[in-house]
Amino acid sequence: MKLLSFIANGRASFGAVKDNGVVDLGTRMAPCTTLRQMLEADRMAEAAKLVASAASDHSLDEISFAPVIPDPGKIICVGLNYRDHVAETGRTVTEKPALFVRFPCSQVGHLQPIVKPKVSDDFDYEGELALVIGKEGRHIPASRALDHIAGYSCYNEGSIRDWQRHTSQFLSGKSFAESGSFGPWLVTTDEIPDPSKLTLQTRLNGTVVQNTTTDLLITAIPALIAYISTICPLVPGDVIVTGTPGGVGAKRTPPLWMRPGDTVEVEISGIGTLRNKVITEPA
Amino acid sequence: MKLLSFIANGRASFGAVKDNGVVDLGTRMAPCTTLRQMLEADRMAEAAKLVASAASDHSLDEISFAPVIPDPGKIICVGLNYRDHVAETGRTVTEKPALFVRFPCSQVGHLQPIVKPKVSDDFDYEGELALVIGKEGRHIPASRALDHIAGYSCYNEGSIRDWQRHTSQFLSGKSFAESGSFGPWLVTTDEIPDPSKLTLQTRLNGTVVQNTTTDLLITAIPALIAYISTICPLVPGDVIVTGTPGGVGAKRTPPLWMRPGDTVEVEISGIGTLRNKVITEPA
Repeated sequence: MKLLSFIANGRASFGAVKDNGVVDLGTRMAPCTTLRQMLEADRMAEAAKLVASAASDHSLDEISFAPVIPDPGKIICVGLNYRDHVAETGRTVTEKPALFVRFPCSQVGHLQPIVKPKVSDDFDYEGELALVIGKEGRHIPASRALDHIAGYSCYNEGSIRDWQRHTSQFLSGKSFAESGSFGPWLVTTDEIPDPSKLTLQTRLNGTVVQNTTTDLLITAIPALIAYISTICPLVPGDVIVTGTPGGVGAKRTPPLWMRPGDTVEVEISGIGTLRNKVITEPA
Repeated sequence: MKLLSFIANGRASFGAVKDNGVVDLGTRMAPCTTLRQMLEADRMAEAAKLVASAASDHSLDEISFAPVIPDPGKIICVGLNYRDHVAETGRTVTEKPALFVRFPCSQVGHLQPIVKPKVSDDFDYEGELALVIGKEGRHIPASRALDHIAGYSCYNEGSIRDWQRHTSQFLSGKSFAESGSFGPWLVTTDEIPDPSKLTLQTRLNGTVVQNTTTDLLITAIPALIAYISTICPLVPGDVIVTGTPGGVGAKRTPPLWMRPGDTVEVEISGIGTLRNKVITEPA
């Protein structure tokens, strides 16, 4: 099942893709009006039955895509989690994953513009595999970690590189308003039983700039979930963005930045393609 | 006015301190049931009038203190923002503030136990001045930054030092469940017109371990708000925790850790004292 958050006729809702259209679940699963609430209520099986029996309510052309989860309680990003990216940054591999955060206001949905801020031109792409938590847990063992995942999506972890380098901490460059994107939808785990067998490609104006397979993650998804859930509970709707492979624009000579008018795509096998145009922050 | 979030008779609410008791505003300001919602609705003046005319509903002894804002959209912490702390860490002062994040699940209220995790004994205190945003803004100039603040509180930014040092990014050591505290209340800006004229003291079992004046912040509060709001909007209920002075336990010889049974206090002039006991994470 492909679950998504969207706006149609001025109303925010969530639903599932069916026959090139969308079955609106926000109108069928009261009191849940958001995908996060549906996950919190543990109603995935019910959603699947509703989608199987319903006709689509909207065509995909009629909706505006929102971030898959517009309002996550946590968006936990993993830095330096592919060896080719660690190498291009001149850093060394750490035993534990480097975690940082994005704020929900930093993400937009599929086909919505991502925004280059006024204060910087060093606007970089980072194609990544994201997962959404479906079941709460603390101290989750790696052996049971996949059971806590609702599904997978694409993430463009848009980064303002000069601000990221202001200090040792990445946050400043990672949470510019509407600088990243999350979508187009969540593919549920029944369709992706093993997240380490995917291919990921980032394209800028059609040119491949990042290309990897997800078996190359330094800290694999089960170990990430075990590590993070040692720190704090993971709850439905929480998002983990698993890290970007080599090929980022900042480490090219000359640097390759995203500019207004550019189109950036993140495609992951079994999920789909997340596509966004770049605009400049309005004056 | 001293605004707080609390639980009484099993119900979460918010209110104001009056005559050693609490005026319950959650029952008087529908549809707002949380302090964050009241700030979002811009009803501070109305709250002040209600408190002036009402008698208290609960004594302070009857309530359980919640974190001042239990559910902030953002908790943005500033690292390395006092010169004596920068010096004790062996780092150098950066031109821009080092920002990182705590998750809401990492904080408890006044008089609630803070939790030393099972996986570490390196549990350190960090007494800090926190502010809560009262008015939304983006690209807020420093000259108008104080207008966006609802008030000030104490924060104990409890840190798990070995986990903080797993990688370059601080998050892992900064968001352990219930490892920090936020309270006892928010003192509104009419009572603290200048947040750079406060004294701050952290005490562990009665012994002073940190002692500063807030004029020593490297990046002062107006500049912090200007910097952060360049990145993204600041909205009502967002929390900025402004940094800790020298004297942390990790940099003493031998290190001074908080242990189960200890009492830690953060006292700021004009605000009050945030007090918590330390317990071990339940098995």
